[in-house]
Amino acid sequence: MSAPRTWPDPEENVQPPAIDGGRLLRRLHELAKIGRDSDGGVTRPGFSPDDMLAHQYLVGEATRAGLHSWTDTAGNLFFSRRPIADDRRCVLLGSHLDTVIGGGSLDGAYGVVAALEVLEVCVEAHQACAVEPVVVIFANEEGALFPQAFWGSLALTGQFSELPSQPVDRQGASLRGPLRDAGGDLDRLPEARWVPGRCAAYLELHIEQGPVLEAAGLVIGVVDAIVGRTVLDVEVEGKAGHAGTVPMAERRDALATASRIVLLAESIARSGCCHVATVGYLNVLPGQVNVIPGSVRAAVDLRDSSAVRLASAEKALLSGIKEIGAATRCKVTACTATRVAPVATDPALRTLLERSAAGLGLSTLSLPSGAGHDAQVVAAIAPIGMIFVPSIGGLSHVPEERSHPADLVSGAEVLLRAALAIAAGQVA
Amino acid sequence: MSAPRTWPDPEENVQPPAIDGGRLLRRLHELAKIGRDSDGGVTRPGFSPDDMLAHQYLVGEATRAGLHSWTDTAGNLFFSRRPIADDRRCVLLGSHLDTVIGGGSLDGAYGVVAALEVLEVCVEAHQACAVEPVVVIFANEEGALFPQAFWGSLALTGQFSELPSQPVDRQGASLRGPLRDAGGDLDRLPEARWVPGRCAAYLELHIEQGPVLEAAGLVIGVVDAIVGRTVLDVEVEGKAGHAGTVPMAERRDALATASRIVLLAESIARSGCCHVATVGYLNVLPGQVNVIPGSVRAAVDLRDSSAVRLASAEKALLSGIKEIGAATRCKVTACTATRVAPVATDPALRTLLERSAAGLGLSTLSLPSGAGHDAQVVAAIAPIGMIFVPSIGGLSHVPEERSHPADLVSGAEVLLRAALAIAAGQVA
Repeated sequence: MSAPRTWPDPEENVQPPAIDGGRLLRRLHELAKIGRDSDGGVTRPGFSPDDMLAHQYLVGEATRAGLHSWTDTAGNLFFSRRPIADDRRCVLLGSHLDTVIGGGSLDGAYGVVAALEVLEVCVEAHQACAVEPVVVIFANEEGALFPQAFWGSLALTGQFSELPSQPVDRQGASLRGPLRDAGGDLDRLPEARWVPGRCAAYLELHIEQGPVLEAAGLVIGVVDAIVGRTVLDVEVEGKAGHAGTVPMAERRDALATASRIVLLAESIARSGCCHVATVGYLNVLPGQVNVIPGSVRAAVDLRDSSAVRLASAEKALLSGIKEIGAATRCKVTACTATRVAPVATDPALRTLLERSAAGLGLSTLSLPSGAGHDAQVVAAIAPIGMIFVPSIGGLSHVPEERSHPADLVSGAEVLLRAALAIAAGQVA
Repeated sequence: MSAPRTWPDPEENVQPPAIDGGRLLRRLHELAKIGRDSDGGVTRPGFSPDDMLAHQYLVGEATRAGLHSWTDTAGNLFFSRRPIADDRRCVLLGSHLDTVIGGGSLDGAYGVVAALEVLEVCVEAHQACAVEPVVVIFANEEGALFPQAFWGSLALTGQFSELPSQPVDRQGASLRGPLRDAGGDLDRLPEARWVPGRCAAYLELHIEQGPVLEAAGLVIGVVDAIVGRTVLDVEVEGKAGHAGTVPMAERRDALATASRIVLLAESIARSGCCHVATVGYLNVLPGQVNVIPGSVRAAVDLRDSSAVRLASAEKALLSGIKEIGAATRCKVTACTATRVAPVATDPALRTLLERSAAGLGLSTLSLPSGAGHDAQVVAAIAPIGMIFVPSIGGLSHVPEERSHPADLVSGAEVLLRAALAIAAGQVA
């Protein structure tokens, strides 16, 4: 064994150990076969048999690489160079392996495979680690089957009040059995909590899932904040009636009212009041061609990296909805179904990531993450940093989710440089 | 048997034979039990077992009253005082017994029961009939199970090109068996056709299905036209994407585009370009709270009693849709799924109905029918007249479909007076 070494400043243009791009891409390719749909998409909801197969695949790869692996009581899977004490200071690198229904092959998996790659390089290079690099594969980030999204990261950060005591899937089946099969234990869930201070930093590499980097022609995005999200469930009660017999002046058409709300949400975001606003579903009852809609259910999803702007957008939406209901004589109720605060990434880690990219000759773009990530949950107990690489066509959560292989490798290289610097005790 | 008599002018305030209100309401009450839903509604789709039960119930009532009954090859059921020759000149009185799914107890059934009542009064009063009164119960007016709406009236009027040669239900099952069970014969369908001139007039009594008469405080509506109807199937293709990661400026949100089309349709009707316009259903895909809608299917239903206004509304809609698609960068296609021309009722019959009501001391309102009726089909071979009575709350095609019993009796009285006048050879 050669002597442990320390690494140069990540910005210096000195050749550090490089990640094995072929190995990274091969693992992504093999993972994409687990839960693959007939249309090329991937369906691997958290705690499903395919999700477990994916975990097992990674354990096999890690074991072959001589790494130590373990599972906590929440079903989170970890890899490290060797067994470590519970109070060992760590830099966590990771993401998740579960997907949405009909999702793509990169969301989550890319960050996991890259984190494993970084850890292997640490081992292969006999890195001296003041801070221990640990790979984490968070359980059930998406919540596609068991709707407790961020299950694993909420448990690791001790945010148990955000989790149901008796978690069940959408059909009412308990998580207890699947969690046990995953190596967890519902009765000992609190043991999954990491003591404060143990995690020196958390780094997550992810595809952007949007079109911004591609449009800018850049390979590396450094996330400045994970946007907050407010979801309002909206219900419009009008009056159903025959499409031929009720004069326009007599109508209380729930869909005409809901359409005004869709356009209100759009205009609030377009006017810059918040980053984005979306009405993703809208259910019309009774939903027949010749019946005036009597009721509509919809949800408005608002996102912004500023809590103040998010609150002001919500206020504008609620006030506008009230006016629309009064003007159209429909009863409109709106209640907040979800309210997640924006989370800023750590300034020192942002700088580290920018310098790591610069050391590789890569320009970066600072941008918010419009999607949620385990990183925003981990932010409760540790500084977080996130790296994005471009999504082709901005697509994500669909079978066509792709990134250029070279970009995937570049993102992993940035993660490696930053992780090595943290492990070497140069940051945090 | 007393000597046949002729009846006075319907406008004269002389007491003619009166319908038996108790019998009328009892039959409606008993019919409402056939196909009754747990919520009080009635589900009796055309050619369903419950529809057949309702036909059998009426045959039983007619037989007990000494009437002659027969079924044609299309499954239309007829009652007359006695067997009649194929070339006997008739005044047809009727409607249908089939309902929509989850409909009410009056749509169709009221007109049928009232027609039977009128025929019984003719028999009981030994009316001398220059024109033979015949009750018709048209098969499958609604098309709820077998989607060939107006099946029976299209066959009677010889409009076979409007009917499929191999009619099937929404699951693909053939109408052949159910039609045979109803006393019809698919192979001999053309025999259902009435020769031109045989039908001197067709009168249909119906609930209004809208709020106009109730708002006007009047009991009798005389229909001036059955509105035409143009239905456009609209498909919006945008681009699905993550609700958090795609900036507003990059979006091609199919629901935001469809919402503009809903409001365009509304404004076209509200501006008076056509009588009414409705978007009754709107299906959003993928329909998830955190996904920008990629595609929307909807239908716009336009109605007016003027063919010119209907065409101009369709043109305005198509042109507006095109502009909306261009402005929102979505591909919008609109194709005409249904185009039914408006049908005017016969002026002489309108006058007769108004005079009949006046003879009973009832004011009338001339109004269009926003809903379709067998009368509009029969108009192809005979003058038609339609009477409306108020719908409480304007409701129809719902379990809460109701009319005041006194109004139901008044409507039947007007039908009786008019039918007697036509049977006596005073009109047409």
